[in-house]
Amino acid sequence: MENHIHTSHKQVLNRLSRIEGHVAAVRRMVAEGRDCPDVLVQMAAIRKAMDNTAKLILKDHMEHCLVHTAGGEDQTEVLKKLQKALDRYMG
Amino acid sequence: MENHIHTSHKQVLNRLSRIEGHVAAVRRMVAEGRDCPDVLVQMAAIRKAMDNTAKLILKDHMEHCLVHTAGGEDQTEVLKKLQKALDRYMG
Repeated sequence: MENHIHTSHKQVLNRLSRIEGHVAAVRRMVAEGRDCPDVLVQMAAIRKAMDNTAKLILKDHMEHCLVHTAGGEDQTEVLKKLQKALDRYMG
Repeated sequence: MENHIHTSHKQVLNRLSRIEGHVAAVRRMVAEGRDCPDVLVQMAAIRKAMDNTAKLILKDHMEHCLVHTAGGEDQTEVLKKLQKALDRYMG
């Protein structure tokens, strides 16, 4: 576990809070028996919000974490881990 | 707003509850300054869970809602709305 604060740290937290609230709202829609296509449209919006938040985390990571390890002995390890995370996210 | 209960209604609600908890856990990870690739891997898992839940909703919708409107006068409208939801979700 590393302890680092990024440029968009607060923004990422706010976005994740909003996504959490959005998922709760969709759960209520389903519980109330709301129209399926309406539910799917909201779920698509959550997916898009997740992707945008992931992009923001990645951008921060590129700018800060990688720069700090540039030239260091653990650079290969950092890049390998990032590649793995990207593969899982995109794949 | 329509009021219909589907085969997987409870399962969809449970999955959405789990996704909500998972997003909250990721928010805590970010708040604690956890490693970016670890956060991205968890977000990828949430995305996959969202997609699987959307598939389940769609499957239920196909089986129940569409069958009920088959041959009815609002069939075209139902299909148009479903197509729109799919476009937004997939696109």
